[in-house]
Amino acid sequence: MNTENSQNNLREQALELHKKYKGKWGSYAKTPLETQEDLRLAYSPGVAEPCKEIAEDPENAYLYTSKGNTVAVISNGTAVLGLGNIGALASLPVMEGKALLFKRFANIDALPIVINETDPEKLIPIIRALAPSFGGINLEDIKAPECFIVERGLQDLGIPVMHDDQHGTAIVILAGLMNALKVVDKVGKAIKIVVVGAGAAGHATVELLHAAQKHKYLTLSDIIVCDSKGIISSQRGDLDPEKQKLLSITNTHSIEGSLDKAVVEADVIIGLSQPGAFTEAHIAIMAPKPVIFALANPTPELMPEAALQAGAWVVATGRSDFPNQINNALAFPGIFRGLLDNRITQVTTEHMLAVSQAIALLVPEPSQGMIVPGIFDERVSKAVAEVFKA
Amino acid sequence: MNTENSQNNLREQALELHKKYKGKWGSYAKTPLETQEDLRLAYSPGVAEPCKEIAEDPENAYLYTSKGNTVAVISNGTAVLGLGNIGALASLPVMEGKALLFKRFANIDALPIVINETDPEKLIPIIRALAPSFGGINLEDIKAPECFIVERGLQDLGIPVMHDDQHGTAIVILAGLMNALKVVDKVGKAIKIVVVGAGAAGHATVELLHAAQKHKYLTLSDIIVCDSKGIISSQRGDLDPEKQKLLSITNTHSIEGSLDKAVVEADVIIGLSQPGAFTEAHIAIMAPKPVIFALANPTPELMPEAALQAGAWVVATGRSDFPNQINNALAFPGIFRGLLDNRITQVTTEHMLAVSQAIALLVPEPSQGMIVPGIFDERVSKAVAEVFKA
Repeated sequence: MNTENSQNNLREQALELHKKYKGKWGSYAKTPLETQEDLRLAYSPGVAEPCKEIAEDPENAYLYTSKGNTVAVISNGTAVLGLGNIGALASLPVMEGKALLFKRFANIDALPIVINETDPEKLIPIIRALAPSFGGINLEDIKAPECFIVERGLQDLGIPVMHDDQHGTAIVILAGLMNALKVVDKVGKAIKIVVVGAGAAGHATVELLHAAQKHKYLTLSDIIVCDSKGIISSQRGDLDPEKQKLLSITNTHSIEGSLDKAVVEADVIIGLSQPGAFTEAHIAIMAPKPVIFALANPTPELMPEAALQAGAWVVATGRSDFPNQINNALAFPGIFRGLLDNRITQVTTEHMLAVSQAIALLVPEPSQGMIVPGIFDERVSKAVAEVFKA
Repeated sequence: MNTENSQNNLREQALELHKKYKGKWGSYAKTPLETQEDLRLAYSPGVAEPCKEIAEDPENAYLYTSKGNTVAVISNGTAVLGLGNIGALASLPVMEGKALLFKRFANIDALPIVINETDPEKLIPIIRALAPSFGGINLEDIKAPECFIVERGLQDLGIPVMHDDQHGTAIVILAGLMNALKVVDKVGKAIKIVVVGAGAAGHATVELLHAAQKHKYLTLSDIIVCDSKGIISSQRGDLDPEKQKLLSITNTHSIEGSLDKAVVEADVIIGLSQPGAFTEAHIAIMAPKPVIFALANPTPELMPEAALQAGAWVVATGRSDFPNQINNALAFPGIFRGLLDNRITQVTTEHMLAVSQAIALLVPEPSQGMIVPGIFDERVSKAVAEVFKA
């Protein structure tokens, strides 16, 4: 009853806010425009001068235009929050929200752009054609496996292109996990992680966890990934090429079956799935001091109270109204700030690991209720951007 | 010497301004983002609510997002000012300048977007795919004849799409012309107009002048259009389909030859061409009290001093540093304000004529030095937007 009330309140208040301001994004003029002289310099005839300079050397765009501080937040609306494929237009509030966060946390000028195109082979050339306007591109809410194709197809653009649902999420998960392992006193112990959900974030998280092991940020005994059909194993005949790739870095003992089997003696469950994807019963059969990341948005796989009651030691969600918010907002503003300031054109795995560590280190003494810094912690985007300095 | 100095000064100052502010466009956050509660409503989990509303009814995008106050300024950089085809990236300063004017004169949130695509058949689907993000689209600096194809191909988008170099320019020319005819005391007299230049603006101007005659805003004896090869006449074998269309509404006596022949006894020359396209000698053979619009940008066909010395009665240019600035900035901010506020999806010829008249009427007693209101006249965009009220 209380939950239902608070849900209704959230709904009403959220709609009210969006209605009151008519959206969340706006543009502003950086230069004065009050006199004929202003107009003469900023527009006709003076504007021809920076145009000529850029025509001569494209590099000059970073000197004379906003390009170098601009990030496009681009989506086709095929995988929005917990809402799924709601289409480009309906995803616009999320892109505006993202633009808001870019501005608030990293002073980046962002353009929310939704594109009516679901075919990655058509989406790639559209985004390529738009790229001259931007200093970077944040891909958002594009469904898997298309998101992998789109992101890969744009890595040679000369500006950084990052699918935040993949990497932003993975980075903050790793940061939270490193601190959670301190809380449960398992640092250095070989841990078993079950990732529930093999979408965009699931893939990127598995890859980053694997890289973290390789670079000695973590010690893993194994990672098991489950999708809606159960454990991703070599015996499965229904795996798409992206899921097949996961086999080489997960499930080293080739176990098969359902999630029930996967979580036995697991140290950590990372949910990137949907409400109800795992339950109290799963927590009960994990190793001691279970760490539960229930990151489905807006409704977690299992609510924090329930998880704690079932024996979870540390619980994190994606939400701002519970402790331990694993939110990519801790990563993407500072990441793009760092990329733009240092004119870096690609985000590497090494960057990502270093960002995870930078975020984790902002909480030097993590506790059950605090494994990551808060979203409003002003140090975060600065520390993250610092990672990209030469 | 003086002119050269002032040119150098302009160049230096314009580059300095663009460098100092690192471009002219920025984004800002319309909603507060200071607390967890703000974040809960504007981002996760609250943002799902407006998404759901829009998924249910696209119309709700106008209620819960910035769409309804947003205009994309889109170019491919194929016909920039007097610079020609300098490419998408190099045209970005112009698009940012336009965004600045949208904000300053009509409080419209504008996105400067340059697209690396010159083929209209490919540009159209790209812009169509982007359209959900915007309340309107201002096409800019796209060369003729491609601009006609692109603009026509986007008229069914459900949001207004206007190529400003065509219609914005034509509208302000007509406004200025109606007032210039008062100054030279030729209102009601059948006038002969020579349009020099058959690009985007030339076409649209001819069409609007013709419509003005039909709707009795003007009395014309004839319009003669000249391109770089001379008078556009039925005898010419080199006309593209767009130029052929002009034949049905111009050159009623099918005269042929060069500009020298066209301007004999003309009342008005409208230059939409390039520096030097006409000279003092042409003014000398016009009818009494010549009206000269030398609108090439940034350098007029003929400088105002020279035109006046050759006998011109009223001279207008596109520049802010001479009197009588025929600048589409008088039209486009108010036009889009009116289109957005009244949710009008197409600009009609009747709209354009009414906008011309609204602008002209703001100078009830025009003089040689003032045939159009100044760009900073706060009444302009309001009067223009008023035209679109139901």
